[in-house]
Amino acid sequence: MEENQLLAEIQTIIETGSEDDRNVLKSVVQGIRTKQRGEHRTYLSAITHVNHRFVDDGTFEVTIPIQPLIENPLKMAHGGITATLLDTAMGSMLNLKAPQNIAYVTAELKVNYIHPGRGKHLRCIATILHQGKQLSFSEAKVYNDDDKLIATGSGTFFAIPLSS
Amino acid sequence: MEENQLLAEIQTIIETGSEDDRNVLKSVVQGIRTKQRGEHRTYLSAITHVNHRFVDDGTFEVTIPIQPLIENPLKMAHGGITATLLDTAMGSMLNLKAPQNIAYVTAELKVNYIHPGRGKHLRCIATILHQGKQLSFSEAKVYNDDDKLIATGSGTFFAIPLSS
Amino acid sequence: MEENQLLAEIQTIIETGSEDDRNVLKSVVQGIRTKQRGEHRTYLSAITHVNHRFVDDGTFEVTIPIQPLIENPLKMAHGGITATLLDTAMGSMLNLKAPQNIAYVTAELKVNYIHPGRGKHLRCIATILHQGKQLSFSEAKVYNDDDKLIATGSGTFFAIPLSS
Amino acid sequence: MEENQLLAEIQTIIETGSEDDRNVLKSVVQGIRTKQRGEHRTYLSAITHVNHRFVDDGTFEVTIPIQPLIENPLKMAHGGITATLLDTAMGSMLNLKAPQNIAYVTAELKVNYIHPGRGKHLRCIATILHQGKQLSFSEAKVYNDDDKLIATGSGTFFAIPLSS
Repeated sequence: MEENQLLAEIQTIIETGSEDDRNVLKSVVQGIRTKQRGEHRTYLSAITHVNHRFVDDGTFEVTIPIQPLIENPLKMAHGGITATLLDTAMGSMLNLKAPQNIAYVTAELKVNYIHPGRGKHLRCIATILHQGKQLSFSEAKVYNDDDKLIATGSGTFFAIPLSS
Repeated sequence: MEENQLLAEIQTIIETGSEDDRNVLKSVVQGIRTKQRGEHRTYLSAITHVNHRFVDDGTFEVTIPIQPLIENPLKMAHGGITATLLDTAMGSMLNLKAPQNIAYVTAELKVNYIHPGRGKHLRCIATILHQGKQLSFSEAKVYNDDDKLIATGSGTFFAIPLSS
Repeated sequence: MEENQLLAEIQTIIETGSEDDRNVLKSVVQGIRTKQRGEHRTYLSAITHVNHRFVDDGTFEVTIPIQPLIENPLKMAHGGITATLLDTAMGSMLNLKAPQNIAYVTAELKVNYIHPGRGKHLRCIATILHQGKQLSFSEAKVYNDDDKLIATGSGTFFAIPLSS
Repeated sequence: MEENQLLAEIQTIIETGSEDDRNVLKSVVQGIRTKQRGEHRTYLSAITHVNHRFVDDGTFEVTIPIQPLIENPLKMAHGGITATLLDTAMGSMLNLKAPQNIAYVTAELKVNYIHPGRGKHLRCIATILHQGKQLSFSEAKVYNDDDKLIATGSGTFFAIPLSS
């Protein structure tokens, strides 16, 4: 797609799109800009405006605003996004605590969907059950802005050596 | 964000962004346009250019191109996207086969990540193990374009009545 | 098998069996006797000498002694027994809190095996994440007598009406 | 428990027990005897009369008769036994195909319970999805003697070196 065509398509979305269409476009554009500034490691976390922080040494928190971009046809957070949030929270926490020459990859992830993901944002709290040289285990819970339990997850992670 | 500011941010991405940045922008813009034309039910499937079809009555296929938008920092398909693909394939198949007054929601999803999701696209093949009035069970496998097994998934789905 | 033959086989075990063989026989005989006295609802829990209690209204504890009967070839608690313990703890807790005309059956169970199940006993602590009219969700953790985390589990349970 | 007391308890079961009590006792005694003859590696598989065989190089079958010993209060196979069957089938297949200096232990197991485990026996069919030097993945399905699908399972297995 040429630049002119791209700008024409963007103009069409701005002029003929629904409010949701325009909001999704804005959200993605802002996300790509934050990715350019190095605030995110993946486009997926950038365009969904994920934020993470250590609450304390053993507790990692990842939040994501609920917006049309991540909604399913029933107007709640898409189950795949909830799974992504859980995987990201558990995996990121392990990787931030790992030696520099190791990366953890997910071997297995399980999610229980308990309540619909509705509200302003989802907040995922992850903890490490065991961090081994090869295998690590984590669990995490997802809440909405009313602190309702939306989902729980658990995962097995495998350490692979990174080439320097 | 005002329209002028949005267009300025877009211009900045086009002028100063990396090739990946521009490709992600194009992919999203094209996706929103296909969503406008009614070709997708969610923004998530629209911007990731997911396609689905029944291979036969008992086999449902969902494909997704691998592009920077869905890659993790290790330059393979993000595990959350693979989970989304599995959830979408199993859930969509069940919903397409359900009576009109029922929608299936995911109660539980498990994913095994077997090989890195590298290549041109991922292809998910779903089958239904049991479709009950209340509980249904599905399983699915994800392959890359070399037909290598990337991931497997299984899920429990719960039927909820839709208000007419 | 006739009674005479049964008693002859038992005599053979007592005379020619290993210490483990005799201990397994004793454990099972004691278990069947407790089942006769109504102290257990299943033979499986009776012969493995499972005990359960509510620690408080929201916490249910099930313990099982580690003995040759439940060991795998590596001389630790068999993973299937750990799974049984988790399923029993979560399911029993839900059923003890359910209305009398309802029984919960397990729709799905996942177990993470974190450390080998060695020691004197395993202790499982279960909590309910959500108890709904149809679907319920629980999680549980298994510890050994050193309070080391042996395994974690989570499950989805489905309520079925009991015929009166 | 002394030998005399053991024999007295056994006599009590034979004289005052239910038919199920006596059948469980017989089943266990026969199982311990097969364990003595080296036909089983664990007491659990011996007393539940598990049998296994390779159907072909890539398919492993484990069967277990349904008897009072393994039934839950609803008179169907206990979910923990179904989990044990799945774990045993997947793990045994991997170990029988592994180099002699390696043993696979279960890192994670997930079970979906699809239909009640009723009938004469349960039959589990396992296949290996990927057998790696460190991580392996398997899946398995459980059928009853009417070839009804009772349960499905999947697992992650980790190779540990055996001391020679």
